[in-house]
Amino acid sequence: MSKKALEFAAKNQGKALAELKEFLRIPSISTLPDHAEDVRKAAVFLADELKRIGLENVRLIETSGHPLVYGDWLGAPGKSTVLCYGHYDVQPPDPLDEWLSPPFEPVERNGNIYARGAVDDKGQLWMQVKALEALFQEYGGKLPVNVRVLCEGEEEVGGEGIAEYVQQHPDALKADVALVCDTEMFEPELPTLCVGLRGMIYTEIEVRGAKTDLHSGIYGGAAPNPFVALAQIIAGLKDADDHIRIPGFYDDIQPPTEDELAAWKRLPFDEEHYRQTEVGSPELIGEKGYSVIERVSARPTLDVHGMPGGFTGAGAKTVIPAKALAKVSMRLVPNMTSAGAYEKYAAYVQQIAPRGVTVETRLIHSGEPVVIGTDNPFVQKAVNAMHEIWQKDTVFVRGGGSIPIVGEFERHLKVPVILMGFGLPDDNLHAPNEKFHIANFYRGIDSIILFLESCGA
Amino acid sequence: MSKKALEFAAKNQGKALAELKEFLRIPSISTLPDHAEDVRKAAVFLADELKRIGLENVRLIETSGHPLVYGDWLGAPGKSTVLCYGHYDVQPPDPLDEWLSPPFEPVERNGNIYARGAVDDKGQLWMQVKALEALFQEYGGKLPVNVRVLCEGEEEVGGEGIAEYVQQHPDALKADVALVCDTEMFEPELPTLCVGLRGMIYTEIEVRGAKTDLHSGIYGGAAPNPFVALAQIIAGLKDADDHIRIPGFYDDIQPPTEDELAAWKRLPFDEEHYRQTEVGSPELIGEKGYSVIERVSARPTLDVHGMPGGFTGAGAKTVIPAKALAKVSMRLVPNMTSAGAYEKYAAYVQQIAPRGVTVETRLIHSGEPVVIGTDNPFVQKAVNAMHEIWQKDTVFVRGGGSIPIVGEFERHLKVPVILMGFGLPDDNLHAPNEKFHIANFYRGIDSIILFLESCGA
Repeated sequence: MSKKALEFAAKNQGKALAELKEFLRIPSISTLPDHAEDVRKAAVFLADELKRIGLENVRLIETSGHPLVYGDWLGAPGKSTVLCYGHYDVQPPDPLDEWLSPPFEPVERNGNIYARGAVDDKGQLWMQVKALEALFQEYGGKLPVNVRVLCEGEEEVGGEGIAEYVQQHPDALKADVALVCDTEMFEPELPTLCVGLRGMIYTEIEVRGAKTDLHSGIYGGAAPNPFVALAQIIAGLKDADDHIRIPGFYDDIQPPTEDELAAWKRLPFDEEHYRQTEVGSPELIGEKGYSVIERVSARPTLDVHGMPGGFTGAGAKTVIPAKALAKVSMRLVPNMTSAGAYEKYAAYVQQIAPRGVTVETRLIHSGEPVVIGTDNPFVQKAVNAMHEIWQKDTVFVRGGGSIPIVGEFERHLKVPVILMGFGLPDDNLHAPNEKFHIANFYRGIDSIILFLESCGA
Repeated sequence: MSKKALEFAAKNQGKALAELKEFLRIPSISTLPDHAEDVRKAAVFLADELKRIGLENVRLIETSGHPLVYGDWLGAPGKSTVLCYGHYDVQPPDPLDEWLSPPFEPVERNGNIYARGAVDDKGQLWMQVKALEALFQEYGGKLPVNVRVLCEGEEEVGGEGIAEYVQQHPDALKADVALVCDTEMFEPELPTLCVGLRGMIYTEIEVRGAKTDLHSGIYGGAAPNPFVALAQIIAGLKDADDHIRIPGFYDDIQPPTEDELAAWKRLPFDEEHYRQTEVGSPELIGEKGYSVIERVSARPTLDVHGMPGGFTGAGAKTVIPAKALAKVSMRLVPNMTSAGAYEKYAAYVQQIAPRGVTVETRLIHSGEPVVIGTDNPFVQKAVNAMHEIWQKDTVFVRGGGSIPIVGEFERHLKVPVILMGFGLPDDNLHAPNEKFHIANFYRGIDSIILFLESCGA
């Protein structure tokens, strides 16, 4: 049972890490148009490796945005088919000056590899590639299970291309289970399966006042100030208990089961330690009446990511800007829908807009929330594989983030999705100094080897 | 009486405009450190011209920031001394993409000259230089009045250097009156003297939440969001009637006299025309219970100029930023003080700061409000000079903006300050497509010639 594959993986750890570094050096920032060529370069890099290790039908699938990378090996008739998913695009690295080493020059420090994309998601995608390589080695160029690999380069910008492809070509993606490696463990040494994900709507609010920028000395007191108006709108979105004030926003929520709530209470979680080491703020905030674990995974939230416009340089410029923008997103939980949430939000923003300005909201992208049943046999296979490697029982959690494709796989391919991830809570996703714990990279490869093999058993 | 000087000015209009264009091509943006050399270049350009036309003792006076430019001609014993002031620095040109022609490539269109600094203040400073040149021509290398010229390159960043110099060297600036050309006319063809100016405090509020940027999926619901907190603070600074909620903020205000209020009511002002042509917003805002003219010149106001930080690029980045900043300024009116206003503001910001974040306020710069008595004989000389050129009676207004040096001249040199300005309300000060009406540039030169001559009579 996979002995040779595990041995191959163990022997080739250094090589796998060196390859990952090469992958990480490509600044495949999907949200920045200037980096479109880099995103494609990362796609080609990945496709070349899939071909090299033994996958068939490897190709780039063009979309309206960045390409998908597809490959398969379907030579195990009668056995299950696993659809392996990851994404090869990354978040922008800003603020650049807070990185201890450049974001696209991977560096090892303290047993971690630091780079943008280290854990989200190039490192976790590469684990799957290396697990497949080891299995091809053990089985003499074959696999013990049928495999399709489908990777995207737009996860960080909403994943429209892959969503469209999945909706339009479910037959080309026929599978029995999907494996997604893009989540994290609850704590180091605690194998974790994510069985729920929040959805999201990412929006912009644009406020326009005067027809052009005006001098605040001459027009202050008559011209509307779009930043003041925007601040008033944002302040109106939440109350002092961080309860979202959008009418009807909470209506469709299906609360967690008693079992879930009881299990979350048993998780090893020290709120004060979490505040100090992970967040580092004077106090935690969030909706009154809910535990931190509920608040970050089973309750909807609203955040502002930036407010572009106006004068942002050093010093003073006494301008009343003609317009101001806010980037506002909301996380959604079962059974909210992105369409319903956006409709209520957009209507409420108009309702609370102050006088003197025009306000427009835009939906930039969205994803639906999902919950995965823990009674599925593939969930059990994942639990067993991780037990073998980590010698620990798996904990089930819900993820606070959104992986839009999970909902698409569920809805259009009718497959259970196994969210087996090996990040750690302090990996600085989407932030400066993103890292991946190198030991988890190796144990992740081993866990995936065992899971894939068991899927074919 | 000044016939030859006016003739010289008339004959040399084209040359004066060409010189001004050369002056405007120097991007002397005082607020941007990268432009420090350009600011100095503008100072040297100005000093060279002062020397050429006949001023003596011309030199740059170094400060902690950008240099002052000084020159004098004191060869008229027994006559008054006029201190001429202007500033050779300009505001940043952003947003660049809204300029119809590049900000530092002056272009003539529709009888205007378009460039950053055209009216604020290079064009108006150059009028003084050209008026002095014409008088030197008429009086055979002499002047009919004693003159000192003192120009600064830090007006747009608070004018600390000149304030310090004035405070420390009042004897080197002895004068009977100061002439400041940095204001505007109430409407085209209506000669205007500004007899009051608002003061200001320009501040930053910095809000810090988590120790580093965090992923909003993973931490949304627990980590404080600095932009949300900042929005709540800003929303708390004003009520729905645009009344500033800082306790005690209005306490020290000395209301305008009944005469002033009556005169403002007689000014040719059409609120709807102003809204449409100058502001262009759906509605005007401002403190309830006060006319537009009062609101923009005789009442304190509060504006937000920009909110740097977080993600401001295109598309989506789901980050909870570790910190957020807001640039907030307040205009002050007599007899408020900048120190008192800032103290009340800073205390109130702390008082309304929401949980989970630390909040810091900083004073970037400040200036005191001033009112100038209309009974001063030099005010009458200015009125007469403008009547000669424009054939109209002068209106007295208060300016909404701040020219910090005016207060310093009053306080430390004990001189009345004549604010004789020739800008127009739609000149786009501090905004894209700043312009100066070329006819006003020429008539401004003529008005100054007559005013200076009458000061020596």
